[in-house]
Amino acid sequence: MTEIDQIPSQFQNWKVVISYDGTDFSGWQIQPGEQTIQGEIQNALKRVTGEAPLPQGSGRTDAGVHALGQVASFALQAPIPADNLRRALNRTLPGAIRILHAKRVDDSFHARHSATAKTYEYRVFREAICPPHLARYVHHCAWPMSFSDLQDAAELLEGEHDFLSFAATDPDLAARGEEEDSDLPVRSTVRRVFSSSWEQKSGPDGALLVYRVRGNGFLHHMVRNFVGTLIDVGRGRLAVECIPEILAAKARFAAGPTAPARGLFLHSVEYREHA
Amino acid sequence: MTEIDQIPSQFQNWKVVISYDGTDFSGWQIQPGEQTIQGEIQNALKRVTGEAPLPQGSGRTDAGVHALGQVASFALQAPIPADNLRRALNRTLPGAIRILHAKRVDDSFHARHSATAKTYEYRVFREAICPPHLARYVHHCAWPMSFSDLQDAAELLEGEHDFLSFAATDPDLAARGEEEDSDLPVRSTVRRVFSSSWEQKSGPDGALLVYRVRGNGFLHHMVRNFVGTLIDVGRGRLAVECIPEILAAKARFAAGPTAPARGLFLHSVEYREHA
Repeated sequence: MTEIDQIPSQFQNWKVVISYDGTDFSGWQIQPGEQTIQGEIQNALKRVTGEAPLPQGSGRTDAGVHALGQVASFALQAPIPADNLRRALNRTLPGAIRILHAKRVDDSFHARHSATAKTYEYRVFREAICPPHLARYVHHCAWPMSFSDLQDAAELLEGEHDFLSFAATDPDLAARGEEEDSDLPVRSTVRRVFSSSWEQKSGPDGALLVYRVRGNGFLHHMVRNFVGTLIDVGRGRLAVECIPEILAAKARFAAGPTAPARGLFLHSVEYREHA
Repeated sequence: MTEIDQIPSQFQNWKVVISYDGTDFSGWQIQPGEQTIQGEIQNALKRVTGEAPLPQGSGRTDAGVHALGQVASFALQAPIPADNLRRALNRTLPGAIRILHAKRVDDSFHARHSATAKTYEYRVFREAICPPHLARYVHHCAWPMSFSDLQDAAELLEGEHDFLSFAATDPDLAARGEEEDSDLPVRSTVRRVFSSSWEQKSGPDGALLVYRVRGNGFLHHMVRNFVGTLIDVGRGRLAVECIPEILAAKARFAAGPTAPARGLFLHSVEYREHA
């Protein structure tokens, strides 16, 4: 049973690429009484088309996490041109959520099941004073850090590993009985990280460190636990060589703290075919 | 009677430079039951020093207007080192408000009365889709505009003029019986604009137009009414030559609409001496 079988012929399958500022939302996933990205998009679809399909995201993002290129899919009966749908949704959505692209796709496309890779970005601001207009989008770390240690430790996260040590242990997640990327075996905490590295950037506001990680899937809080641990290495609280030990421990307490949601961006999602 | 005479000898006069994201505040000026920048800073001073002087701003900013370099002055008894005061205030203030500098100044300094010039910046975003992380900080204008018309019209605002046509006519302001810069004669609407020009910028998010205006004082809504009118010129709704006519009309209806608060930044304030 997949959603694919549930799209009757008069429905058209859609793929949308979405950017959002997650600060004022309770995450991606619809929840009663909460403002969520998924809920806002469903409401916008209803206002624009009269239909209210639940958009299926490539994965959940937590409260406060942002997206530059989240992907969602849904089916509509309305025969609306793609550009009109995008523009109409943007007119009715809050400015904190933008539909960057909308296109009709094959019925077999599903934003989560069809994904082959995802890239996340995490932004760390290095100056003594964090400008107010960046405060929602960075983790402010003014303390000294060794860039080469950050980089060496980041590289040790590459490859296929059991990332249990970096997975959230929150009871809420256990109750959901699900991982963020449910296309992979439900109880497995093995993932493949294709690349994991830092970049030093400087802009008009000062120095920024950007961590970028690409993988075939991510456990709940995995990127934020990577970053919290890498920052502990950068500050000298953990040695670079601790990373393989942390992976081997397969226990959350072995790793560092969870970095704050506000620095995290879902950068992009890749798919098997050019969907 | 000025605040200067009210600083007893055991008090030290302070100057602070403040940056803020005005989106979630009801403007600079303290108001009962509202979150304001002035109120937040007064509360922070109380938490840090036990004293609660009302910080005097260089001028008010309206709800939603930002600052890169607002200046305020106040008097404290506590003999706290300047850097400690700055750091302590930043620890207790929300991330949307940052104290960039704090220094002890001569008793004669007053953030509003001593100001000789102010510079405002207004940011207009030109691409079809406004990225969510810019939405709070720009006016999104995707329609075609003539840059040379914008620039020519902006230059016609330079010089000493009666800017009544660009002043807010809101009854609230009349009731306050005050202008933004009350160091100038209360009923006068004559101001000197030293420079008024646009700059085209392009960054990772696309094209931005930045309007910068420097003057010896600004009436309430003056910069936002400048920008609303200049955009009407850029779009071809008004001719460049209308600017002198609008100034001569001395009537608010002669000018264009008030541009939204979110694009406006108080950039900096200048003072007679190097205070």
